[in-house]
Amino acid sequence: MIPKSQNLTQSESQVSRADRERLLRHRAVTLWFTGLSGSGKSTLARAVEARLMERGVLAYVLDGDNVRHGLCADLGFAPEDRVENIRRIGEVAKLFADGGVITMTSFISPYRKDRDNVRALHDQGQLPFLEIHVNTPIETCEQRDPKGLYKKARAGELKNFTGIDDPYEVPLSPELTIDATNTTPQQAAVILVEYLEKTGLIRA
Amino acid sequence: MIPKSQNLTQSESQVSRADRERLLRHRAVTLWFTGLSGSGKSTLARAVEARLMERGVLAYVLDGDNVRHGLCADLGFAPEDRVENIRRIGEVAKLFADGGVITMTSFISPYRKDRDNVRALHDQGQLPFLEIHVNTPIETCEQRDPKGLYKKARAGELKNFTGIDDPYEVPLSPELTIDATNTTPQQAAVILVEYLEKTGLIRA
Repeated sequence: MIPKSQNLTQSESQVSRADRERLLRHRAVTLWFTGLSGSGKSTLARAVEARLMERGVLAYVLDGDNVRHGLCADLGFAPEDRVENIRRIGEVAKLFADGGVITMTSFISPYRKDRDNVRALHDQGQLPFLEIHVNTPIETCEQRDPKGLYKKARAGELKNFTGIDDPYEVPLSPELTIDATNTTPQQAAVILVEYLEKTGLIRA
Repeated sequence: MIPKSQNLTQSESQVSRADRERLLRHRAVTLWFTGLSGSGKSTLARAVEARLMERGVLAYVLDGDNVRHGLCADLGFAPEDRVENIRRIGEVAKLFADGGVITMTSFISPYRKDRDNVRALHDQGQLPFLEIHVNTPIETCEQRDPKGLYKKARAGELKNFTGIDDPYEVPLSPELTIDATNTTPQQAAVILVEYLEKTGLIRA
């Protein structure tokens, strides 16, 4: 997006992201969880957060609950609102990662283009970005239906519901895919933390 | 703001802000710098950031440059855009502070109501909020005019410019007031860091 105001100069901080990473003793990265409602994104992100914090790694989860009530409280679930929602979250994740934090985002983020935009944003800032597809089949998600949303969507009480009357565009080349049907959040969190170790983002 | 969607449940993280504060060995807080263009807000915030980082305190500055190019790139300087700009920044500062970071925001933030809203938001989250008025007289700001903006505003090339054709509402009870006319950013940063020590937010 081209800034609406041209009276801006990009200022350089005396303190760099590298300084913050040295202080924290780990790299900063955004872990972008995407998947259907009820797929287990938030539970997984919380499990990863807990494991990382046990090891002294600063992690933070942005999720539909804390962001939708605040930063994006003015947005609904219509297509254009979903686009703006993901754009803002992508920008905030970038700021957090620039702040040195291992940042996890847990949003359905159904559209490929929006996720690709967020990835490009991180690439521009030379910030690592990992797309994690929580690939739980819709049948499982609908069976779980923790918030009763699928039931409402099937009854026509909820419109623009991903997987029912709004598309979910499957990631084409995510860094990781997790099927949370037969994997517990704890097992999946182990896989993820090992991935962060192997890629050198955190210490083994 | 009442969330537009009612299909939300506020989820509790297993990891709390207190856990992150223990990890980082300091409290989280938002330092909200407010003052005219050219008053020295950003320079001061950067000086405080550098001093804090030297002491192993994780700090991050949100400023007009990094936020206006990203999260708020869709907003201009008209009154309604300024309101939305400050609302979003307030929400992001709250998320950062919840993440355990000592968060500094450097925006003119000219309207009292908007600043009070951000304070209320932090109060709701039981997050410490310090309003710091960088009270440099407009004559000094205009003489400095580091970006040539006052000159443009006086020539009528810039509309809605704070202090010229848009009001700056002076804080009524800021936690700190700094006049950056005769105080160097380094001196002011010492005052601020001492304040954080005295109030127990960081270790002496």
